[in-house]
Amino acid sequence: MRFEHKDLLTLDALSSEEITMILDTAEGMKEISNRPIKKVPTLRGKTVVLFFQEPSTRTKISFDIAGKRLSADTISISSGSSSIVKGETLIDTARNLEAMNPDIVVIRHSSSGAATLIAGRIKASVINAGDGLHAHPTQALLDLMTVREKKGRIEGLKIAIIGDIAHSRVARSDITGFTKMGASVTVAAPLTMIPKGIEKLGCRVAPDADSCIEGADVVMMLRIQKERQEQILFPTEREYSNLFGLTEKRLKSARRDVLVMHPGPMNRGVEISNDVADGSHSVILDQVTNGVALRMAVFYLVAGGVKHAA
Amino acid sequence: MRFEHKDLLTLDALSSEEITMILDTAEGMKEISNRPIKKVPTLRGKTVVLFFQEPSTRTKISFDIAGKRLSADTISISSGSSSIVKGETLIDTARNLEAMNPDIVVIRHSSSGAATLIAGRIKASVINAGDGLHAHPTQALLDLMTVREKKGRIEGLKIAIIGDIAHSRVARSDITGFTKMGASVTVAAPLTMIPKGIEKLGCRVAPDADSCIEGADVVMMLRIQKERQEQILFPTEREYSNLFGLTEKRLKSARRDVLVMHPGPMNRGVEISNDVADGSHSVILDQVTNGVALRMAVFYLVAGGVKHAA
Amino acid sequence: MRFEHKDLLTLDALSSEEITMILDTAEGMKEISNRPIKKVPTLRGKTVVLFFQEPSTRTKISFDIAGKRLSADTISISSGSSSIVKGETLIDTARNLEAMNPDIVVIRHSSSGAATLIAGRIKASVINAGDGLHAHPTQALLDLMTVREKKGRIEGLKIAIIGDIAHSRVARSDITGFTKMGASVTVAAPLTMIPKGIEKLGCRVAPDADSCIEGADVVMMLRIQKERQEQILFPTEREYSNLFGLTEKRLKSARRDVLVMHPGPMNRGVEISNDVADGSHSVILDQVTNGVALRMAVFYLVAGGVKHAA
Repeated sequence: MRFEHKDLLTLDALSSEEITMILDTAEGMKEISNRPIKKVPTLRGKTVVLFFQEPSTRTKISFDIAGKRLSADTISISSGSSSIVKGETLIDTARNLEAMNPDIVVIRHSSSGAATLIAGRIKASVINAGDGLHAHPTQALLDLMTVREKKGRIEGLKIAIIGDIAHSRVARSDITGFTKMGASVTVAAPLTMIPKGIEKLGCRVAPDADSCIEGADVVMMLRIQKERQEQILFPTEREYSNLFGLTEKRLKSARRDVLVMHPGPMNRGVEISNDVADGSHSVILDQVTNGVALRMAVFYLVAGGVKHAA
Repeated sequence: MRFEHKDLLTLDALSSEEITMILDTAEGMKEISNRPIKKVPTLRGKTVVLFFQEPSTRTKISFDIAGKRLSADTISISSGSSSIVKGETLIDTARNLEAMNPDIVVIRHSSSGAATLIAGRIKASVINAGDGLHAHPTQALLDLMTVREKKGRIEGLKIAIIGDIAHSRVARSDITGFTKMGASVTVAAPLTMIPKGIEKLGCRVAPDADSCIEGADVVMMLRIQKERQEQILFPTEREYSNLFGLTEKRLKSARRDVLVMHPGPMNRGVEISNDVADGSHSVILDQVTNGVALRMAVFYLVAGGVKHAA
Repeated sequence: MRFEHKDLLTLDALSSEEITMILDTAEGMKEISNRPIKKVPTLRGKTVVLFFQEPSTRTKISFDIAGKRLSADTISISSGSSSIVKGETLIDTARNLEAMNPDIVVIRHSSSGAATLIAGRIKASVINAGDGLHAHPTQALLDLMTVREKKGRIEGLKIAIIGDIAHSRVARSDITGFTKMGASVTVAAPLTMIPKGIEKLGCRVAPDADSCIEGADVVMMLRIQKERQEQILFPTEREYSNLFGLTEKRLKSARRDVLVMHPGPMNRGVEISNDVADGSHSVILDQVTNGVALRMAVFYLVAGGVKHAA
């Protein structure tokens, strides 16, 4: 079986079989990062451009390391060096990048749809590393990878997602991914953070955090983005923490072998308590580790790989 | 024949034979970027420092990719991380870089003459990536390469350059390069954008855009740098566009096989219309593609190469 | 003999034998930077993260070049891209980096103790590239290397250090390192720049610059950090220069073969005159050259090397 997509823009475009292929490949890649020489020549002589219009050190480093472990040459364009887009449309920027013959362009952008817009104009593979409020497919895939690794399966699991769903491309991609793989997803948040029609993505909206968590196999907490919240009517941090923060007490109603996840960076004491973040249920750092392997797999597959490189 | 220069600071120092050698080498390099493994070991173990005191993502990426495709190690110092020059003279900065044994230093600087100043003090090869209003030799060379590639020759061609000649190091280097290779260059711009004595570089000044373009083999439009213009008496953007902007209509008086060029980034609708920028005469993206090959050739030649590396 | 430390945080933890081992290894590394192919495969497939929360182009480039000359993959996180620490504790940042399986984390941080804090939490080797007012061990080691190289020994030498001792982690690490290797260290500065109890580190405080310099084998001038000084009662720049600046005249009371050192960047005309900075006693650029070799040695040794790699 071959991965037939030039780009990775959103999980909507992928079948469950294709997602499984990505996760299988990522498992194979994971082992490379544990070798004494953590590098394979798979993408030697390939050029990967990391075009991050929004700052995101964490995700960028993950992609950068993933590229280098496959021996690709990685080139960074960060938001600080924005001259490439000064007086220039996003499409012109993309065409200019394309003219330098990159193989893969990883893009993080504040506009929903930016990655898709570019992907349609250039021959290079485009990986969406987060576009506006739209999608963050590699984050959802690494979440799927982590759950499958820890639980042995995704199908039939109960996934609780709690936080600012309205402003979270992670939530959107996770809902799409987990439901596509046969899990059931329930979300909870203050009303101002629940977008209208979110159920159309296939999830259920719980009336409060406790009923969302009850019986869950996985509880995923989202980062409260303080910079966004000030504009809208919002519970105070303390109120939010009381009503929706994940504590040991609140976690008791989940399944005994529940996984606690968070895309990071965490606001400790706000959406998640210290003891939960560092507790035995937490797989938050496994998510980070799997992120590198998952991105190696995505690079490998869009570059035309047909079997495990390792 | 051997390239006898340690540095590339300006085209003044090069003979037409040397320019031809650079263009020939760049043609050979171009093919590398189209290979599945777009990398040769030519500069393995060489250190290339990219020292950009002025932001310029486009040019910096081009040099970075060029270095990596020759297997050099590239090290970036951007304007954001300016501590190296804090309380330190440019010469001290250069000496400090030199003490780390780089092979090539690529410098972009706001002061005219900065590259020359440094080149005289260090053993490493210095490539001028744009210094103040003085010169931008690799841009002119990639323009020459693009014209020669498309036209089969440079000698005898009529080149029109339109825009803010006074503030354009690109224009200066292009006038020098094209006249040296036997083309005739005519410039046009509002009076405030024509520097006194520009004819000494070997070009003619046309009274208006239309007479500049008439019969031209190449029309090169310069970017209007809005940040610079506000200080001086200047036509409005609309007036500029009406009088000097390149439109399909205005282009009709050029030769039927005219090439349209622009060093980028473009202000669409100001100095160039959408239909011209994306039209069949435009070789603007070829310029970007050739920029990588040209910079590979320059790296290769200043590093002591005697024949094509490919 | 094997280097038994996972990390390099401060010179306090090292014996004089271990310091000698580092300097011996660095001497072997120095030769690599002079080869036509200045690169060895020693750390191929190793990941080095350069995490600089405080800007420091000079030190960062030195570490970056050192890593690349050993064929490591270097990944930069600069202060500009601070999102990794937004709403996140330093320990969480460290754990996240650790989850991506780096081999070495080089950290520059404004908080004294930051490097030590991280080193205790992660498996990767941590190299302190300067933490607050605490320590800058690789700077002291390259100073030791330079003195040993030029003098043939360190033991028994008289070292004068002049400048803002109170705000200088370089001074602290140098005092520790030179006294540990058997040299005697004397410091001089305006009273506001001498921290209480500095003698406990093993140095003597001279009443003025001239008596500090008298008979010295090495005079090390510290950078006056203008940004720090404005808050406290401070002599004017001219007064500082008159009383503590190193001039040819003042240098005459030192030994005839005295070495003049400075960690850079220099304020010429303030703490050091032009003729001294560029004079025959100056080994300031040797310090920079040795910095690359020294950092190669440290990378090599913490990564588990047992003999010279070259």
